[in-house]
Amino acid sequence: MGEGLYKVLAHTPTLNARIKKVCIRHAQKKRDAPAELFTTEAALLLDDPEINVIVELIDDADAAYHIVTTALRGGKAVVSANKKMIAANLTELIRLQERHNVPLLYEAACCASIPVIRNLEEYYDNDLLHGISGIVNGSTNYILTKVFEEGADFATALAQAQAEGFAESDPSLDVNGIDAVNKLSILLNHAYGVTVAPGRIVHTGIQNLHEEDARYAREKGYGIKLVAQARKLEDGGVAAFVLPQFVTEQSQLHTVKNEYNGVIIESSLADKQFFYGKGAGGFPTASAVLSDLSALRYNYRYEYKKLNYHAPQEASDDFYLKVCLSCKGLLQAPHEYFDCVLEWSSNEQRCHITGILHFSALVNGQWWKQPGVSLILCPEGIVEGYVPRKIAADAEVEFVEQLVGV
Amino acid sequence: MGEGLYKVLAHTPTLNARIKKVCIRHAQKKRDAPAELFTTEAALLLDDPEINVIVELIDDADAAYHIVTTALRGGKAVVSANKKMIAANLTELIRLQERHNVPLLYEAACCASIPVIRNLEEYYDNDLLHGISGIVNGSTNYILTKVFEEGADFATALAQAQAEGFAESDPSLDVNGIDAVNKLSILLNHAYGVTVAPGRIVHTGIQNLHEEDARYAREKGYGIKLVAQARKLEDGGVAAFVLPQFVTEQSQLHTVKNEYNGVIIESSLADKQFFYGKGAGGFPTASAVLSDLSALRYNYRYEYKKLNYHAPQEASDDFYLKVCLSCKGLLQAPHEYFDCVLEWSSNEQRCHITGILHFSALVNGQWWKQPGVSLILCPEGIVEGYVPRKIAADAEVEFVEQLVGV
Amino acid sequence: MGEGLYKVLAHTPTLNARIKKVCIRHAQKKRDAPAELFTTEAALLLDDPEINVIVELIDDADAAYHIVTTALRGGKAVVSANKKMIAANLTELIRLQERHNVPLLYEAACCASIPVIRNLEEYYDNDLLHGISGIVNGSTNYILTKVFEEGADFATALAQAQAEGFAESDPSLDVNGIDAVNKLSILLNHAYGVTVAPGRIVHTGIQNLHEEDARYAREKGYGIKLVAQARKLEDGGVAAFVLPQFVTEQSQLHTVKNEYNGVIIESSLADKQFFYGKGAGGFPTASAVLSDLSALRYNYRYEYKKLNYHAPQEASDDFYLKVCLSCKGLLQAPHEYFDCVLEWSSNEQRCHITGILHFSALVNGQWWKQPGVSLILCPEGIVEGYVPRKIAADAEVEFVEQLVGV
Amino acid sequence: MGEGLYKVLAHTPTLNARIKKVCIRHAQKKRDAPAELFTTEAALLLDDPEINVIVELIDDADAAYHIVTTALRGGKAVVSANKKMIAANLTELIRLQERHNVPLLYEAACCASIPVIRNLEEYYDNDLLHGISGIVNGSTNYILTKVFEEGADFATALAQAQAEGFAESDPSLDVNGIDAVNKLSILLNHAYGVTVAPGRIVHTGIQNLHEEDARYAREKGYGIKLVAQARKLEDGGVAAFVLPQFVTEQSQLHTVKNEYNGVIIESSLADKQFFYGKGAGGFPTASAVLSDLSALRYNYRYEYKKLNYHAPQEASDDFYLKVCLSCKGLLQAPHEYFDCVLEWSSNEQRCHITGILHFSALVNGQWWKQPGVSLILCPEGIVEGYVPRKIAADAEVEFVEQLVGV
Repeated sequence: MGEGLYKVLAHTPTLNARIKKVCIRHAQKKRDAPAELFTTEAALLLDDPEINVIVELIDDADAAYHIVTTALRGGKAVVSANKKMIAANLTELIRLQERHNVPLLYEAACCASIPVIRNLEEYYDNDLLHGISGIVNGSTNYILTKVFEEGADFATALAQAQAEGFAESDPSLDVNGIDAVNKLSILLNHAYGVTVAPGRIVHTGIQNLHEEDARYAREKGYGIKLVAQARKLEDGGVAAFVLPQFVTEQSQLHTVKNEYNGVIIESSLADKQFFYGKGAGGFPTASAVLSDLSALRYNYRYEYKKLNYHAPQEASDDFYLKVCLSCKGLLQAPHEYFDCVLEWSSNEQRCHITGILHFSALVNGQWWKQPGVSLILCPEGIVEGYVPRKIAADAEVEFVEQLVGV
Repeated sequence: MGEGLYKVLAHTPTLNARIKKVCIRHAQKKRDAPAELFTTEAALLLDDPEINVIVELIDDADAAYHIVTTALRGGKAVVSANKKMIAANLTELIRLQERHNVPLLYEAACCASIPVIRNLEEYYDNDLLHGISGIVNGSTNYILTKVFEEGADFATALAQAQAEGFAESDPSLDVNGIDAVNKLSILLNHAYGVTVAPGRIVHTGIQNLHEEDARYAREKGYGIKLVAQARKLEDGGVAAFVLPQFVTEQSQLHTVKNEYNGVIIESSLADKQFFYGKGAGGFPTASAVLSDLSALRYNYRYEYKKLNYHAPQEASDDFYLKVCLSCKGLLQAPHEYFDCVLEWSSNEQRCHITGILHFSALVNGQWWKQPGVSLILCPEGIVEGYVPRKIAADAEVEFVEQLVGV
Repeated sequence: MGEGLYKVLAHTPTLNARIKKVCIRHAQKKRDAPAELFTTEAALLLDDPEINVIVELIDDADAAYHIVTTALRGGKAVVSANKKMIAANLTELIRLQERHNVPLLYEAACCASIPVIRNLEEYYDNDLLHGISGIVNGSTNYILTKVFEEGADFATALAQAQAEGFAESDPSLDVNGIDAVNKLSILLNHAYGVTVAPGRIVHTGIQNLHEEDARYAREKGYGIKLVAQARKLEDGGVAAFVLPQFVTEQSQLHTVKNEYNGVIIESSLADKQFFYGKGAGGFPTASAVLSDLSALRYNYRYEYKKLNYHAPQEASDDFYLKVCLSCKGLLQAPHEYFDCVLEWSSNEQRCHITGILHFSALVNGQWWKQPGVSLILCPEGIVEGYVPRKIAADAEVEFVEQLVGV
Repeated sequence: MGEGLYKVLAHTPTLNARIKKVCIRHAQKKRDAPAELFTTEAALLLDDPEINVIVELIDDADAAYHIVTTALRGGKAVVSANKKMIAANLTELIRLQERHNVPLLYEAACCASIPVIRNLEEYYDNDLLHGISGIVNGSTNYILTKVFEEGADFATALAQAQAEGFAESDPSLDVNGIDAVNKLSILLNHAYGVTVAPGRIVHTGIQNLHEEDARYAREKGYGIKLVAQARKLEDGGVAAFVLPQFVTEQSQLHTVKNEYNGVIIESSLADKQFFYGKGAGGFPTASAVLSDLSALRYNYRYEYKKLNYHAPQEASDDFYLKVCLSCKGLLQAPHEYFDCVLEWSSNEQRCHITGILHFSALVNGQWWKQPGVSLILCPEGIVEGYVPRKIAADAEVEFVEQLVGV
């Protein structure tokens, strides 16, 4: 990607930027640019006083952390696309920006070509933003499209996604939802000023989805997407999670196919907005990096407005979700976590239970991520104003009673 | 209808038939034909030696029985459309035809304008006929179309069917499946030489169908029809019943809308055939009566071939059906009658259990006809070669175990 | 087919029929029945006084004519499936039946397993029959299904039809509509008492249909079928022709796919009826032959009622059709035959002109059958009560004026 | 809208902004804010040294011009939503910003809540931007949705659009495409650095669309949208126009219904992007104004990069379009403007000609805007690399020759 960017910059004279040095890992690899441009020593760049912007594009979070923090401490502006590193260290990175008075921009880290971070910064003041929900990982969306719409099998679809170059080098980061969590963690800061470590965000990926889930979705007229979302609750808290979700044919997320990303933002003034574009791959990433470089020209920096100028927002675990739990048989389903069951169905392959559960049931357990279990959010998602029906002690009894329709 | 037929005959000189007298119930009613044609005394016709054909079209099974049997005994050919009377007395009516050597024709009694009886007589030898299944009651099909395809409510649809004139004077005969049973009873004789009293044919109508059944069918891509069917089993017996059935979009029965009837006949030589036409109303009935009158000209009579020339066929209760049971909650469903459960689903309104049960479970009980319970045949219908899974004593336990997926 | 029938008869004891001899062409061919059953000498059968029924199933119209007429003259009943021979000689064959008082039955000659001839004989009196329209050639319907619905090319589809055994030995008889004409010619007799030599029935097949016609049909929501039809006109004449026709999705003919046949009969009493079944292949043909043999047991014979008992009906050429003419360019289209043009469209491949023309324009010319020209009947077909707009002398001028919208 | 904004600002303390005075037109109108806030004297605001930002939201282009230019000259930053005034005076307004070193922001002027101007400024460098095409007028899109998708008539739909408040006070500005032209004129500056007076942009609206155009579109599987677009040509020029266009079901513009706006941006790096949101109405406009006010906090101003840092782009008239011309009859269609005709069709109401014409044919004439004529861009739009077929002198002859397929 460094090479790609080099070429693009060469053809964008208006940026008034020049690439002085490119730090690479493998010196032997043949490259399509002057040899003197390359080094394997990052320090050569970090210590060079002539260099005032570091663009960090490497696929190694630890190395990236070292480069970015060193650069910021050295007073150099930084552009990074490393969502994993940024998500893991955002609080520190914000502090470094302030202390050294240098900007760190990372539009490429979320949905690549979709300018979602900058728009959140500029457009939505947090007391007006109802929610944000999006397909932020192109690789899993590609696999879902191939598997659930075009009938491919999972392994083939994953291999294709890797061959096309929009899967992470470790595909389990995509497939298990980790990559989406990293992005959501960053978005949460810009959307709501909420800082949550990625590891603490409730999530799962597409790894446990079953072909019967696709059949079930089709019968209901739904698609299945891996959706990262954050939503301001009526009580002021912020709900945030990454889960597979049924989407109706009317939803704009339904139109997002293959490696594309799409983000819906709802706010009281702008009502509903939808941004769509390529979220993975070298060129779309270069596009975002370029726009960051361009913004540096007028000293643009993220203001983290919701963090700095508002009363702090808190991530909340206190809300209800409408979900569909898919597993082999009812007994496997730890139904005691459901507050009420609205609908269920089963055949010889698979059982689907639709009901309402408290979010803490997902926070406090791994039951819903076990092999053979998939949990899919219903189109309604968060259910505000829900009056719980459950009497804790009798939960299991009541569940069976509901089941048999007493 | 008598008047209608009078007019048609007047314009069909080739029949070489003349109406001498029309026996009516209400002398005062104004009629559109010469007054001397009418009488309220049936005996005037039955005793008239000049009259050699009696056409019986009255809506009173007892009176019809008297007229038809008296006429046959008096050596007069008879054309009748009274399916209820014929179904109830077919054995005797066959004997009277033989003893007095006069024909009784009743094409109008089954599907009116569709020549199904004559085709069964002429075309299918019983060892070749795999099965016959049809929509034979226009009134219920009209209601199903209005309610499940056009969103009308049941009462309105029934009133419309009556206003249009294709509901029986007692609509419960249509709605509860009695009319379809009468027709199936007649068809069974001509298709398989099987004589079963209508009262002994397993049946239900559309009276218990629930709007959730329509929702369930739509999700599966099915329609719902009231289907009368008879099928030769592998062991040589004949299965016969009238039940609501899910039909796939590929089935020709799916194309039968409103008051139309449609019959599918499957046989080893002709493969699949489908006959479609109006099965109710004055003109289609007149059409069938007319063709019977025409056939009398060359002394056509039903040969009851399968009854007379073949080893007697027996109605069988020993087979399995794949059905969907719809009820309020699982506990209401007498699940002990199921041999196995393949699929079930439930929401807060309704529960659907799909499984396989032995036909005797329907013969020996009324549980599946109770208010609040509907039983709908799956598209597959009869399941031949099914190996029962049930251990009788543990039936209920096993059902619950299946349910919870042990 | 002789062998197939032999086996079926052996398993149908109730027919009380025995095959004494089978006349074959190739003595050497190995057969699955006792050798003494076979002969290559037709005379052995025709002269045998013990044989009282001749079943003629050979694929040679001249030989069939000799056998059938000899048999009838010899007082033997005949069952034939040879539509070509029957259509060509129907008047003589009717006379022979009368003179020698023996029946000739040929249900298998029209739509094989669909009992259309017998139903026309029995059910519809000609003053009540509005029209009959049907897909009567399974081979062309198979090709149309493959080509226009499944995207096959014409040659492949034809080869498949032949491999499946439902194309005539000379496929051009199917493809050019000749086979359908032969069937329509026979049906015309039974439906309306109209005798027209097949050669005089206006017809074309599917040979000139263009892939742009399929595209055009799809855009309008139509299918394309080869339809044989006869219709009683308001002035009492009978219109009859075989033409490709656009059919709407609501038409039952639209549901007839592959080698199946389907016939719609409309009459004032029965309203609309539809018969559907296999119209080609050994077993469906055997099914019809078998039913004819069965009918011979009670001396059934066609009465040709409409011919014998009614005022003679006349085939009429005096009516208007709504058609779509498809050709390369407007100049190629002999537009002078149109009375008015309602719609036209054209692209670089093909031009479609929809308008109304007098039927005589098709009778008196071959222009509409030229290579590169296809004429497709619109769903409306015959337009009764049409007031011609054309002033003969100025026809062409007016056409162009219409074209350019003056 | 002033009042709405007042309330929003009151609840957005982080902006650190205070409304000192609101200039209104009608002093008597009752308002929901302190009376001392209001004045009818604009000068009171413009001359107040304490006021450093003027927000101009009035529906009067001349008055707006006076206010905005006075404010800029007085060194006050300005936020405006007046697309008409801005489009008409953009060159002067850019010069005033430079001379007085104050920003003028107007995100609300294009697609209200969609941040299209800022994204064009920040994200796309003009040598990479292939094109931009969008539905930028909510009122006409609302009418098209109601009329062509929901079957309303034009007048009713227009009245509804006005009642809902997203039609201009003079609806002909929407309906005739003027409003879209004003927006395109502004976008052209930011996308390509091209300055064209709105009056010189080729455009039409939806005023001449005919219900037969909707029928035609439906048959082809298209929708009809009013699309403003600009595209970089292979020769380096920029094509720009506002025309109704057929859009395929695959196009994201097809999903934009009612008053929503949607913009597709295609570039070599980011590939395809799509932005969707409300483009009209008080709240979405307030949302955009608010974001402009927010941006003023860090001295954001439009850089007009493509104008200032690139070689000047030129609007080009030298390209070909694929269009469909709809009119009463061919003679009415000034077909001499077509270079070639690819497809045409006609019925008794309307004629549609699809072909390729040189854009200058639209620039130099009003023929295609006459009452009774509608011109609709085909989905392909601009046809690059087209080799003209026309021999100028024989144009008309050739057209007719094409028409008749010589």
